[in-house]
Amino acid sequence: MDIHTLTRELHIRNETKIVMLVADGLGGLPLEPGGLTELETANTPHLDQLARRGILGGSIPVAPGITPGSGPGHLGLFGYDPLKYVIGRGALEATGIGFALEAGDVAVRGNFCTLDALGNIVDRRAGRIPTEESAPLARSLREAKVEGAQVFVEPVREHRFVVVFRGKGLGDNVSDTDPQATGVPPLAPQARETASEKTARAAAKFVEEARRILASQKKANGITLRGFAARPNLPTYEEVYGLKAAAIAVYPMYKGLARLVGMEIVGSATTLDEQMGVLEANWPKYDFFFLHYKYTDSTGEDGNFAAKVKKIEELDAALPRITALGPDVLIVTGDHSTPSFLKSHSWHPVPTLLVSNCCRTDNSPAFGESHCARGGLGQFEARYLMTLALANAGRLGKYGA
Amino acid sequence: MDIHTLTRELHIRNETKIVMLVADGLGGLPLEPGGLTELETANTPHLDQLARRGILGGSIPVAPGITPGSGPGHLGLFGYDPLKYVIGRGALEATGIGFALEAGDVAVRGNFCTLDALGNIVDRRAGRIPTEESAPLARSLREAKVEGAQVFVEPVREHRFVVVFRGKGLGDNVSDTDPQATGVPPLAPQARETASEKTARAAAKFVEEARRILASQKKANGITLRGFAARPNLPTYEEVYGLKAAAIAVYPMYKGLARLVGMEIVGSATTLDEQMGVLEANWPKYDFFFLHYKYTDSTGEDGNFAAKVKKIEELDAALPRITALGPDVLIVTGDHSTPSFLKSHSWHPVPTLLVSNCCRTDNSPAFGESHCARGGLGQFEARYLMTLALANAGRLGKYGA
Repeated sequence: MDIHTLTRELHIRNETKIVMLVADGLGGLPLEPGGLTELETANTPHLDQLARRGILGGSIPVAPGITPGSGPGHLGLFGYDPLKYVIGRGALEATGIGFALEAGDVAVRGNFCTLDALGNIVDRRAGRIPTEESAPLARSLREAKVEGAQVFVEPVREHRFVVVFRGKGLGDNVSDTDPQATGVPPLAPQARETASEKTARAAAKFVEEARRILASQKKANGITLRGFAARPNLPTYEEVYGLKAAAIAVYPMYKGLARLVGMEIVGSATTLDEQMGVLEANWPKYDFFFLHYKYTDSTGEDGNFAAKVKKIEELDAALPRITALGPDVLIVTGDHSTPSFLKSHSWHPVPTLLVSNCCRTDNSPAFGESHCARGGLGQFEARYLMTLALANAGRLGKYGA
Repeated sequence: MDIHTLTRELHIRNETKIVMLVADGLGGLPLEPGGLTELETANTPHLDQLARRGILGGSIPVAPGITPGSGPGHLGLFGYDPLKYVIGRGALEATGIGFALEAGDVAVRGNFCTLDALGNIVDRRAGRIPTEESAPLARSLREAKVEGAQVFVEPVREHRFVVVFRGKGLGDNVSDTDPQATGVPPLAPQARETASEKTARAAAKFVEEARRILASQKKANGITLRGFAARPNLPTYEEVYGLKAAAIAVYPMYKGLARLVGMEIVGSATTLDEQMGVLEANWPKYDFFFLHYKYTDSTGEDGNFAAKVKKIEELDAALPRITALGPDVLIVTGDHSTPSFLKSHSWHPVPTLLVSNCCRTDNSPAFGESHCARGGLGQFEARYLMTLALANAGRLGKYGA
């Protein structure tokens, strides 16, 4: 069942404000069985007060046992079935560096490689060329002349860059040119269907041009292309929810994901404090605010329990600036768990808190995994969080008479 | 959504060991409202200790309110959607007596009946002929000569037997020959589609041969055939999970169900003690062990609360032999509930316990229905138990970047 079939029909516009605060990788684990998680260890007076006013639950990002990446994790929170809407590698890479993909664009990940005199690959990563050297080379590829498509090239890091082909009739069903081996030449890009032949020709021409432009290089004298992917065709927040939505994020990946669902990227905050300032400044202009906080994930990935605790406490300290604005619905959650015990994303349900004046409080004393496991929202699929948000904001009408 | 689409793509092989201990019909009910269930009444120090180290939940076999038979109950636990994968009556009957169905086989349940001189049915169950008399008669039907198909006949109990047709191009869409009435002759088997015509002809010939072979019998001088069913086409554990799986069961039905998903049937244990011995002996050879314990169901079906309590305590006493092996993931659950109060299978969620080093303990003090109802796994569909098992064993990669 596509929940958007319902929300398209039932949504109502009103003056309410919804805030979704996403602490990336929020969920955790104790370091020892029976111990406390990072969130339970942290001193979080404001979150705990919200927990007493609100309702808790565990958000299942994709399905029980399935660990999501950032793409599916956020799509779920935004109410888009992460099994239905898939963001291909090239599109995610372009999104991750903040490239504003348009409908019809085909993005692909490029790698610099080293070729020998015969054109065979000697090093698939061009000796892991440092970014200082590779970025100017990537930009030099913008000179490539390709008929039938506009080409954008953006540096990423080390041997990596992104290419975007823009034009009419560009399918994305094109094979990788990386042979995943050395001692052989790069493969030719092959269209797997008629609708992608134009893309394959453009890609082949781009590769040829790149060889010419890079001819004098020693390390990075060739390229390979992987993961051709069109901009995913996601309906917008405006269309499915009737929400004018703003995204306030520091990192390009999360701005990019928000842009894919039609949110406007507001401000250019680089700190949580600045994010709060952007929120306050834009409060009258939007219905929905997606606030992204990265550091709960990065400290978890580092396996640094104490640092994650500290980052949660910093987030807690910022909450009064949100509640002072008087949002009608405030949600605090994460796109997935990143327990420092595992040093990686995980499948565990994400502690989630929803506060509104009609949320049916569940008498949880504090915000933490064990209270969320027993919370009034139960263990629910993340993709239902948006319908819960809309309902609590009085923004969903009755289904059926 | 078919969860196997994800597990096929995401599974990882490693050295971990997973044990799924299925106490058939484990879930129960109190004899009086507010009382304790069989599991809560039983003295289960080892299960309670595991509950404190692990996470609890209620497993919903098919859907809320739906009571499963053994087939759907086990398919769910094995991670196969019991609404997608259906084991037809004939195939389940053959599986239940341990007949190793091959792909393309069509199994059907046979009943001896009594015919009068005109060929009309006088008794649909041949006077409930005792097994001692019927079994030799069933075996005598192996003499039947049927062109185009190899025929296997296996006695079951009383008037029942199983027939398996093996050959090329045998569809299973054939109508029953049992008219469900007396005073009329058995029906002719009818193919409901072209692909099943060969099967219908083979069945008609088999019925004719049976009449000849049984001509001198008084009670069992005819047969009817019901529930033509091909071997269900289930993907294997190896394919969908990357697991080399062993089944350690006493009863043929459970061995048969395990065989259908590609588990190897190991040992020939007839007691729980012997099952533990088989587990220990095969520990290095497999990734996954399905252990089946029957008596929690049979005592429940008998309506014998005290006996079910005792059988649970016997199971508990065996647990140290499992934990001594150090499984990375240990699951204790049932395929459905069989409350002795109801003397039958029921729809109630099945108490479920999962222990691993990263299972996010939920502080449950003991293993029992009321703790499971509030457990950290929530009330979940049984078909997700395998993804949870794989995740806890580090055997599932990330979905999406």
